[in-house]
Amino acid sequence: MLNAALKKTSSMLVASQNGHKTRVVVKNICFGGETIPIIAGPCAIENEDTLRETAFKVRGAGAVVLRGGAYKPRTSPYSFQGHGRAGLECLARVGEEMNMPVITELMDGEELEAVLEYADIIQIGARNMYNYSLLRKLGKTDKPVVLKRGLSATIEEWLMAAEYILAEGNSQVILCERGIRSAETWTRNTLDLNAVALVKQLSHLPVMVDPSHGTGVRSLVAPMSLAAVAAGADGLMIEVHPRPESALSDGEQSLTPKGFSQLMRQLEAMALAMGRRVR
Amino acid sequence: MLNAALKKTSSMLVASQNGHKTRVVVKNICFGGETIPIIAGPCAIENEDTLRETAFKVRGAGAVVLRGGAYKPRTSPYSFQGHGRAGLECLARVGEEMNMPVITELMDGEELEAVLEYADIIQIGARNMYNYSLLRKLGKTDKPVVLKRGLSATIEEWLMAAEYILAEGNSQVILCERGIRSAETWTRNTLDLNAVALVKQLSHLPVMVDPSHGTGVRSLVAPMSLAAVAAGADGLMIEVHPRPESALSDGEQSLTPKGFSQLMRQLEAMALAMGRRVR
Amino acid sequence: MLNAALKKTSSMLVASQNGHKTRVVVKNICFGGETIPIIAGPCAIENEDTLRETAFKVRGAGAVVLRGGAYKPRTSPYSFQGHGRAGLECLARVGEEMNMPVITELMDGEELEAVLEYADIIQIGARNMYNYSLLRKLGKTDKPVVLKRGLSATIEEWLMAAEYILAEGNSQVILCERGIRSAETWTRNTLDLNAVALVKQLSHLPVMVDPSHGTGVRSLVAPMSLAAVAAGADGLMIEVHPRPESALSDGEQSLTPKGFSQLMRQLEAMALAMGRRVR
Amino acid sequence: MLNAALKKTSSMLVASQNGHKTRVVVKNICFGGETIPIIAGPCAIENEDTLRETAFKVRGAGAVVLRGGAYKPRTSPYSFQGHGRAGLECLARVGEEMNMPVITELMDGEELEAVLEYADIIQIGARNMYNYSLLRKLGKTDKPVVLKRGLSATIEEWLMAAEYILAEGNSQVILCERGIRSAETWTRNTLDLNAVALVKQLSHLPVMVDPSHGTGVRSLVAPMSLAAVAAGADGLMIEVHPRPESALSDGEQSLTPKGFSQLMRQLEAMALAMGRRVR
Repeated sequence: MLNAALKKTSSMLVASQNGHKTRVVVKNICFGGETIPIIAGPCAIENEDTLRETAFKVRGAGAVVLRGGAYKPRTSPYSFQGHGRAGLECLARVGEEMNMPVITELMDGEELEAVLEYADIIQIGARNMYNYSLLRKLGKTDKPVVLKRGLSATIEEWLMAAEYILAEGNSQVILCERGIRSAETWTRNTLDLNAVALVKQLSHLPVMVDPSHGTGVRSLVAPMSLAAVAAGADGLMIEVHPRPESALSDGEQSLTPKGFSQLMRQLEAMALAMGRRVR
Repeated sequence: MLNAALKKTSSMLVASQNGHKTRVVVKNICFGGETIPIIAGPCAIENEDTLRETAFKVRGAGAVVLRGGAYKPRTSPYSFQGHGRAGLECLARVGEEMNMPVITELMDGEELEAVLEYADIIQIGARNMYNYSLLRKLGKTDKPVVLKRGLSATIEEWLMAAEYILAEGNSQVILCERGIRSAETWTRNTLDLNAVALVKQLSHLPVMVDPSHGTGVRSLVAPMSLAAVAAGADGLMIEVHPRPESALSDGEQSLTPKGFSQLMRQLEAMALAMGRRVR
Repeated sequence: MLNAALKKTSSMLVASQNGHKTRVVVKNICFGGETIPIIAGPCAIENEDTLRETAFKVRGAGAVVLRGGAYKPRTSPYSFQGHGRAGLECLARVGEEMNMPVITELMDGEELEAVLEYADIIQIGARNMYNYSLLRKLGKTDKPVVLKRGLSATIEEWLMAAEYILAEGNSQVILCERGIRSAETWTRNTLDLNAVALVKQLSHLPVMVDPSHGTGVRSLVAPMSLAAVAAGADGLMIEVHPRPESALSDGEQSLTPKGFSQLMRQLEAMALAMGRRVR
Repeated sequence: MLNAALKKTSSMLVASQNGHKTRVVVKNICFGGETIPIIAGPCAIENEDTLRETAFKVRGAGAVVLRGGAYKPRTSPYSFQGHGRAGLECLARVGEEMNMPVITELMDGEELEAVLEYADIIQIGARNMYNYSLLRKLGKTDKPVVLKRGLSATIEEWLMAAEYILAEGNSQVILCERGIRSAETWTRNTLDLNAVALVKQLSHLPVMVDPSHGTGVRSLVAPMSLAAVAAGADGLMIEVHPRPESALSDGEQSLTPKGFSQLMRQLEAMALAMGRRVR
């Protein structure tokens, strides 16, 4: 029934065929295989020292990709908008030192060239999932893309947004569930793991989960990371900050390095129970 | 912050205090302890033979409580509404034969006496979560109650509905997440495991999950059962029917006995990884 | 297409046929005709003096039915729950003095007899729209019923809830849109006037609107009352309190008598533009 | 309370001050004054003859601005995506012939120059409301902008998106409510007129309504257009197609020219009742 639904959407490229699974490979990291890569780092790149400290600690705990925002989409034009190109350079430098591939968000086609130069994986945030012009441009590159689900996007719309990238020739797409909007006010978003399990069945693309935005509450990041792996997630992206209380953005949902390290040990046991590994 | 929010709701009884956890005990089954009891059975009690066949098979696979609806809330007054008292008697008979406690839904105060007589656990369905008169009546009994979250209830409203029961003196309440309404049409509901993890932190009550209604899609029941346990669920309630394609209700979300048996083996491994057991 | 959808729901009684429209008549007041009756009064019956003062003023401004809650569904069991039977008696007394029919909410079958005795119209609140047992009981009376739409009910579910009443023989049902739950936090609910316009086309039942709960914001009650009439509403139910700042419930959405009086003058002009009247 | 909320969002530019109201003037058309301009035309520019026929008819009925999409955001990359620059030229030509200003959607900064050249008003669609890079670019022009509310955007997010444009120096912004996503399936979106009434009180910007997307159902366009004006809308944008059944997109929500003409007569009466005019 669901496959019929997907067919009706005229998906030709993201629909699963004959059990084939796409693997997205970045340096020596593979998304979509038995191992579940963990991405970690701060919401925003604030300064090089803090980023280096965070990277060093999350790498030690088992993270294999470093995240950090240089261009930040913010509800208010007066909020901190990221350090832009200087942030990108800083991220690339720290990634290279730590030997970790880096991921950062792209918001505008004009910044594509710079982001292509400095980032190993490009993230399209929830607010840009419907930005079809931008998706097409990424489709013309061969850079791996993490495509976050829109704030209230249906699963169909999310898959078809991926189709915009694949249709231009770039098959290196990782879908990322990050919570949908609901009437609940005690969490920032409602993490929809149904969607993870369903997309794993409908599509050949790897699916990862962002439990930090998906909950917005620090104490929920660990249980929902475990639940995401149990639901079949092929990766996790987790916000970590050495001093969350003074972070420039999203402090209340960031783990400390110590909390992240504890979570990694729990994830190792969980992945084993699923016949997988986290590193 | 969340505890402050809960305090503001004037919850005095469901709010967690000093780490105390409530255990709800039904015969030799305990909800809220290390073991995670699994409830299984058909959506509706259709006839005694089918119920017995189902009970026999789910018990063999590891289910410890038998579910079955005698009074069915249906959107249309012309849909099958359940066999009522005859269904209750049938459920009690089969439960006794199989030595399994039984759970069934109560829709109306007038049926309370009959349901108290035949059922070991009373379920309040999502549609009646706001039926405060009915909750008060249950609060005056000492029967264990499974309180499902309303179709779009906030976590606060759900906890305060439980407070209606506890405030009358009955502390034997198990909360049950069963999915909330969203704009997604490829799943019946959006299973909100954030709520499970959060309520485990805010409240001393056991929390279980209904992945059958929470997804509405058979192939999603297994992954979401695993995810529920990973998020910290203290129990699961799963619809099983020997011939789902001919079930009188909810066939498309019912597991077969074989599918249920496979799931139980996966749940055993998952529970172990969480330091728990499913039986 | 929509009529086909409705047909598929197996509605036999609420579906519009041959343009026939049901009129619900209470004393000399008619819902579903050219005139648009306005119901007004306090959220809860607090004391007889305040109720009488309110009734006197809203009647003077043009309201023809008096509302007041004796049984109040509240999220917390510790909030003011209404004065119960004493409240009913008070409402009936004031209604008789003022020569206004009265409407009040029924929450439980056990209170049906009392409410039938004292009220001219029975309201089923949003929280009880799915309480099918209660709806069936009302279906066996000949008392006019205002059936509010559930907090997140689909239009189909709302019409089928009405079908539960009609199927038992009571055709005196007025549907009432009161806002649905959304992610918006600056309003209490999202008033869905699409639903009003649609139900007017699909069903023969009168449809009214509660702009007080539908917005939750005093300054929005007037513009949304006008919009409701423009969308085709057959009635309005508006909360009015002489001193909203000290009301026991819903003060922030209650009009003052003066505000109500101003609104009535605007409604008169609006109704005329629609070829109707408000009294 | 709401003004305090708005203040907390750090809005400095869209927040209403001292009752001042912004008027957006396009040729001889003014949005935000006593007159309520009506925009009409097809969803997409299909060919010049059809556009000219539509323009001729809607102008005759009282529309004062011509709409037509040259760049169409579509869920699927395989759906008709609009005629692009050729469509723009066609729209401008027909607008000039008919002496009607024209409005069209901008999806990408790369097309800004072309759209600036050919369009009198630029529309930012719901999918691009969070595209802050694009909003900033429009803020640096002096072209009037219609900013549609995002698919599930809160009112706060919508106002702050406008703030992105105003903060760059362009004050010619018209907000446009076009329905939000809900669980209702019998309408395409849930038109939120609460938001219209609220934004009129919070902001000095004109607010218009798109009842075509806001309902997705042809028979609801007329009642919801009337309701929008009653709620205080400063403009309407309505899809009209001479042969809706063969339209390349959105046929099921397009009025025929005859239906539009009937609606205009109803709108005239409605506007008069509100002390306004539609032309």
